[in-house]
Formats: sequence, C-alpha cells, structure tokens
Amino acid sequence: MADNIRVTVWNEFRHEKKKEEVRSIYPDGIHSVIAKHLNAQPGIQAATATLDEPEHGLTEEVLANSDCLTWWGHTAHEEVKDEIVTRVQQAVLDGLGMLVLHSGHFSKIFQRLMGTTCNLKWREANEKQRLWVVAPNHPIAGGIGEYFELAHEEMYGEVFDIPAPNELVFVSWFPGGEVFRSGCCFNRGNGRIFYFQPGHETHPTFYDENVLKVITNAVRWAARQKGAVPRQFGNHKPLEQLG
Amino acid sequence: MADNIRVTVWNEFRHEKKKEEVRSIYPDGIHSVIAKHLNAQPGIQAATATLDEPEHGLTEEVLANSDCLTWWGHTAHEEVKDEIVTRVQQAVLDGLGMLVLHSGHFSKIFQRLMGTTCNLKWREANEKQRLWVVAPNHPIAGGIGEYFELAHEEMYGEVFDIPAPNELVFVSWFPGGEVFRSGCCFNRGNGRIFYFQPGHETHPTFYDENVLKVITNAVRWAARQKGAVPRQFGNHKPLEQLG
Amino acid sequence: MADNIRVTVWNEFRHEKKKEEVRSIYPDGIHSVIAKHLNAQPGIQAATATLDEPEHGLTEEVLANSDCLTWWGHTAHEEVKDEIVTRVQQAVLDGLGMLVLHSGHFSKIFQRLMGTTCNLKWREANEKQRLWVVAPNHPIAGGIGEYFELAHEEMYGEVFDIPAPNELVFVSWFPGGEVFRSGCCFNRGNGRIFYFQPGHETHPTFYDENVLKVITNAVRWAARQKGAVPRQFGNHKPLEQLG
Amino acid sequence: MADNIRVTVWNEFRHEKKKEEVRSIYPDGIHSVIAKHLNAQPGIQAATATLDEPEHGLTEEVLANSDCLTWWGHTAHEEVKDEIVTRVQQAVLDGLGMLVLHSGHFSKIFQRLMGTTCNLKWREANEKQRLWVVAPNHPIAGGIGEYFELAHEEMYGEVFDIPAPNELVFVSWFPGGEVFRSGCCFNRGNGRIFYFQPGHETHPTFYDENVLKVITNAVRWAARQKGAVPRQFGNHKPLEQLG
Repeated sequence: MADNIRVTVWNEFRHEKKKEEVRSIYPDGIHSVIAKHLNAQPGIQAATATLDEPEHGLTEEVLANSDCLTWWGHTAHEEVKDEIVTRVQQAVLDGLGMLVLHSGHFSKIFQRLMGTTCNLKWREANEKQRLWVVAPNHPIAGGIGEYFELAHEEMYGEVFDIPAPNELVFVSWFPGGEVFRSGCCFNRGNGRIFYFQPGHETHPTFYDENVLKVITNAVRWAARQKGAVPRQFGNHKPLEQLG
Repeated sequence: MADNIRVTVWNEFRHEKKKEEVRSIYPDGIHSVIAKHLNAQPGIQAATATLDEPEHGLTEEVLANSDCLTWWGHTAHEEVKDEIVTRVQQAVLDGLGMLVLHSGHFSKIFQRLMGTTCNLKWREANEKQRLWVVAPNHPIAGGIGEYFELAHEEMYGEVFDIPAPNELVFVSWFPGGEVFRSGCCFNRGNGRIFYFQPGHETHPTFYDENVLKVITNAVRWAARQKGAVPRQFGNHKPLEQLG
Repeated sequence: MADNIRVTVWNEFRHEKKKEEVRSIYPDGIHSVIAKHLNAQPGIQAATATLDEPEHGLTEEVLANSDCLTWWGHTAHEEVKDEIVTRVQQAVLDGLGMLVLHSGHFSKIFQRLMGTTCNLKWREANEKQRLWVVAPNHPIAGGIGEYFELAHEEMYGEVFDIPAPNELVFVSWFPGGEVFRSGCCFNRGNGRIFYFQPGHETHPTFYDENVLKVITNAVRWAARQKGAVPRQFGNHKPLEQLG
Repeated sequence: MADNIRVTVWNEFRHEKKKEEVRSIYPDGIHSVIAKHLNAQPGIQAATATLDEPEHGLTEEVLANSDCLTWWGHTAHEEVKDEIVTRVQQAVLDGLGMLVLHSGHFSKIFQRLMGTTCNLKWREANEKQRLWVVAPNHPIAGGIGEYFELAHEEMYGEVFDIPAPNELVFVSWFPGGEVFRSGCCFNRGNGRIFYFQPGHETHPTFYDENVLKVITNAVRWAARQKGAVPRQFGNHKPLEQLG
C-alpha cells in the first residue's frame, strides 16, 4: 500500500473567532472544514495548524512530516513571523507541496515564492463566479467538467501580479465584467505550488463540492514527489578527465 | 483497485529483421523488450503493434483501448500511412498519452503534433552520453538521481527543431561537444506527449535500468487522464441573459 | 535607417464579394483596411494577397520577401491548397512571422503549425467583448491600457484547442458568461506566431483603434528576426577530440 | 529619434581592488568595461554604480532614470542592504529591465525575484565553455550563430535552482561533463530579467565579442517597455451593471 499523503491545513483562524458572520459558516474554522474533507479521501491524512499556536503550528517537525501544506490567511499576514516564512520557503524548495487559497495570495510566503507583489483587483459584492477549465487534461481539473459556478464569491480581477504560471488551469468570469487566472501551477525548487482563487470567508465556498474536488486533486498533484532528485550544489569535481 | 494503464508499444520492426547487428541485440524487436519490461510493472499492461501489421496494428479499437502509445521508428517513416497518422493524432487529442523514442523524432506523427520539422544534428560514433536532470521534482525523473550515463549512444545535438517544451526534464552532454534537450514534455488537446532521446538500434539502450525507469515513469505520467474534461466545441448558447 | 518590415496581408476575400452586409463594411476587403493601416505606420510596408489569385498570391517569391504574414479566412479554408499550406509552414519555420486573425483559427495553416484542431465555442449575437491584458509588459499590449472593449463581436469561448501558448497576452470577457484566451504567442522554428481573436466580418472590428494598435504591435513583434541563428541539421562532426 | 536606453551597470567592485589577478584584467572594474562597450552602441547610454557608493549608487532617482540594470557581484552579496534590494525589486516590478551576470546568481536581488536559492554546481578549472543557442530566433541570440566558445571560464553545472525560465536561450557544454542553462529569460511584474552565466572575474570574458553582443542584445530585450500597461490594484467597481 502506498503511503498516505500527509497534509497540514493552515489557517489564520481570526475572522472565525471575531466575526459572527464568518463563525456562523465556519464555527470551527475554515481549516476544520478542509481537513475534515481531506481526511475522508482515500490515501490522504490531514492535520491542522493555526497562526496563534506556538511557531504558528509550523515547527520543523511538522513541516518535515508534511507532504502538502494548504494556506488560508487574510487579516493577519503581517503577524506571520519572517523566520517561519523562511522555514516554510525552505521546506517548499525541499519538496513540500503547497496550496495557496484565496486571500492567501497576499501572504508573505506566496510573495516570497513568487518574487512579485501578488496584488490584484477585488470587490465584495456577492457576485456569481464561473470558473472555466482551460487545461482540460490537467489532473487538478479531473472530474470537474467544462466549468463550475459559485453562487456568491468575492470578485478577484486582473491584472494579477504573479509570474506567468507554468500551467494555467482555471480562468474565471465575473458578472461585473472581469476575468481572473484562478488556478495557477508553479514550481519552486522541488516544490509544487497551486494557487486557487475561491474562498472568501463570508461565503460557504469550502463546502462546495467542486471546490473540494479541486482541493483534493491539487493536494494529490502538489504532494511531495517521493522519488525527487535531491538537489546538490557547490564545488563539483569533473566527471570527465580534463585535458 | 485502480484500472491498469494499457500501453501499446509500437515499433517499425525493420532493422531487427534485416540487420544482424540489430537482431543480435533485439532478436524479437525493440518493442518486445519494452513491452516485457512494462508488463512486469505494477498497474501497467502492455501489448505491441508493428508497421507491417494491417493498419500498422493501430486500429480504431486498439487506440480506443490504449491509455499510452510508445513509438519507435527510423528507416520507414514514409511507409506509415497518412490516414493512420491522422487517426493517432486524433486519439492523442482525445487523451491518448504518447512516448516518442529516439529516431521517432522524425516520424510523421511527431512532426504532425509539433508543427515543426523535428530535425536535429546526429552522429553515430558510439559515444558516451550523460543525461542531466534539470527538473528534479518531475515525476518522469523519479528515482533517477542527478544524472545517468549510457556507455554508447548516437549523438543528437542542438538545435532541435521543436516548439519549446512545456517542461524540460533532461539535458544531455556528449563528449564531442554537443548538448541536447533529451526529455521534453508537451500537451496537445487532452493528450500528453513525452519525447525521450536515447535508443539507437545498435546499442542495448532499452535494457538499461535507468532508461527503463524513465520509460515506466513517463508511461504513468502520459497515460490518459481518466477524469479529463471532455472538449466541447461549436455553437454555444449564452449562460447568462443577454441584455 | 532600419529596413522596413514587409508585411503580406492575406485574406480569403469571399464574404466581401458575396454578402452585402460584409461589403458595406469592407467594400475593398478586410485585407485592404489592414494593409492601408499598416502602410501608414513608420517602418512598415504592406501588400495584400487573396485566395483567388494564382497560388493564392503566396508564391515562393512573395513569402521570401515578406517578414510577416497576416491571415484572415473563414468560409473557404478547404480551398487553400495543401502545397501552399506546406510552403507557408516552411516559410514560418524559416523565420516568417505570422498573425492569425479571428476565424483564421480554423485555417489549415494554423492547425498545421499548432498540431491540434484549434476548435472552440462560438456564438453570433452582437455581444460586447472586453479584452483584458494579462501580460502588462508585453510589447503586443503596448499602449493599450488595462483592457479595451468592442461594442459588438462574435463570441469565442473556451475550451480553445491549442497548445498552451508561450505567452498569453489577452483574456476576453463576454456578457453571455464565457472567457477566451484572445491573444496567444507561439514559436515554431524561427517563426513567431500571434493568434488574435477579434475580427468577425459583420462588424467593423478592423477599423477599431485598439485592434489596429494590437495588429501593428504584433507585426513588429512577429516580424522575421534578421539576426536569427540559421537552423542547421544533419550529420555533425565532433567539435572535441573523441577518446 | 527614439529615446536612448538608459543602462546602469552595477558592480560589487571588490575583487578588482583587492586581487592583482583580477585588477590586471579589469583595472577600472568589470563595470567600466561593460559600460564602455554599451556606450559605443547606437541608442544606448550607460552609467555605472558600485557597492561602496552611498546607497550602493542605486538611489531612487538612479533607478527611476534607468531602463535596464546589469548586476555583477560575488564576494559581498551580504553587504547589499535589504532596503536597497527591496527598492530594486520594486523598480523591476515597475518595469526596470535587469541583467544578472555570472556570480550574480547568488545575489539577494536575484534570489528575491526568483523565490528560490539560485544555487548551482561550480568549479574553477579554466575550462573551455561552449554556449549552444537553443532558441534560434530569440533576439538575445541575434547574430551569434549556432554556438560560441570561451577559452577559459568557471564551470557552472546543473541543477540550477531557478524556476523554469519563460524562455531558454543558451545551454552550455563543459569538458568536465556538465551542462548548464546559461541564458534564461524571466518576467516579474512589468520587468524583464535575463540571467547570463559567463563572466568569472579571473578571465577576460567581458572583452569577448560574443559575450558583449549577447549583453547588448539582452539590454535591448530587457529594457523598460515604454508602452507597458500600468498595473492597477485594489478595490474595483463593476464595469457591468450587477443584477
């Protein structure tokens, strides 16, 4: 039997504590909903970590024993300690997969890995969102069909200040007239990163069947590649006789 | 249990019949060696097809019941019928994975899928070849290490007239002073294509442990994505009320 | 002074002859409007060629003396002779730039260069189209701003059956709920190709200031690179002493 | 007349002061040689800046009045102040082009823009280097031919810990058996970045005709795109009437 994919579901977990509007949807936090779903999938085991735990719940040991990390944050990006950001970045370069969800676009760790501001346009107007699949054979889109819709989401619009993704999986349509690259694959070192745009805290997005399917697919896609070539650097003796 | 990946190993199968030098290495043909190896891998089942069979062994039924097709050809590219090339192209666009091996670079089907000549430089001089991994977390390089060597291979050198690959996995070094993009990933429609450069018929390349590992990895990577979104085209009614 | 960029503006030129609705907009053909505009730009000189001319106006001499070819076709793709398609393909691989406009997506030459069906969804409903720039520093988007709109265009929707473009410049929004990758850059051999989606024959799209600006920019981007490395193939002697 | 491209040639300028071996080759510093060459090219004007100047010579004003910045550093990467790194990063995102030369791969600014370690293998053995062009129509390779050689350079070998480049222009061959992606194009925000690998301080690489041609080409390619779309972020009102 193959080993399970070990996921750490990270959440800032602040809105849920402070705002009734959010707590009513996610009484135990967004992380609990995502982790519960993942734990119901074959071959995946998920634990959670949150900002207010010691070391934000992201100790060296936790990261070393994770194959994939999902990240949701919004109101407290600045409270994430730089040393933890550096630790997560190193873990990703060493092979940890990462899913960056919704407002996580503005997290220190995503900015660190991208090298850009990761800024965008936004609007909170309870709009419909339609996510079109533009890479129809990508495993992250497996089982989704041509598109899926969310009845109410926050609008995110272009220009999205990211490097051109290695693979573009979803492009969104919003009724207000905007489009957005909503599913984007990147590689950094031995780590695979997937940015997925839906997930505003005032909407029940993380209960949506298609959103959960994408997250499950993306966890499988991003998870640490067990046979990955170890990166070796530094002074190197010649493999051939030099003249 | 997951369904097996069904591979069709296609071979021109001419050199082995005509040239003692080749027959002594591959008495039952290159295809037999590759298929035997694949059939020994968990979750993979392989059959073979060759040029001189009716319809080159590539009937509609064979293609519909394959998840991956591997292709070796060299001396008889022109004998492959255009209608079969068109049939294979359509199958790839509909989701059939494809591995193009060595001199298959000059096959009609690879040229058809790439849109370019797929030409290159070459030299038969029994040179050493060293294949460096430049995408260390790519599943096709899983378990390979930083590089692997072949004691004797045909040199293929740049410029290789292909579209820039979506992902570049291997770059080769040759003692005569050349380099070559030796492991290249492409997408066409719902099909994934991997070009892998080693495999000259006068060398026992397809018995090499690393070559076989790459082929196995690549079959798993390229195989038909079962949840792939069906491509739907043509006249489309609006999803929103037009003003 | 730098040499002028020599453009051949190719048009099927059938709708304009047969349909009053089209002729009233383009009395001398779509090609005349594009060529007139290009001839008014510094450093560009444009001539035209059409389907019904001998060799479709695309003789060896014309192609050899062109730096960029623009292509509009729709109702008569099948009438373009295969030998001329092969000739244009060879010219592109040798460095001729190419702009494929609107319904040219379904031309033999674009299919040939892409290796895919180039199929898509469509709807003729006089809809508004908004083209968002997603590569804000790309020269093809120079001077355009964040987006531009066309009051009435044909809807083209995903999935667009093309290889993932090397660079994605525009993504379109349509009021009926669709999105479309509307400005796509490709390389084939020494040729640069730009697909640009607006341009239905019943709308005055080729008089639009922004459309013309994009076409001008794209001609400059795609035009033959005069210092391009000649591609050299075939048997190659070692550059280093073999052991 | 088009405006000149304004280049700032930045150099750490330490080896030249401290090591006779280096000073004998570059008595006025590597920056002086590069700037002198660039100033002799039509349409380019170059100034210099070095580590030991106030603000490392990279004031807000200098960056705002530069279209391209070239960067050479090696022994004092750590002395570059983080606030200047942040300033340069912001300038790149806003459209400043950047050439990162040789050991600049390990500079803070390149690591910042890439999101990876940018580490690699290396060896100082006065080896020959041969740089093959793998993107024969790329403007950075204009006029170079199929490859060029340097009689003595430092070996840099894979794996090079960078994100997959948008465009790969050069791949190097070294006699010790290594290969290296030696010319790599990236985009970050509105900035274009080119990494170019040759240029060890103990070799006269920056006097080499081909190296200088590549640097000139790359300056023209990377320079600020004057018509670039300004990136606009933040709260955004709908462009269409919401239902």
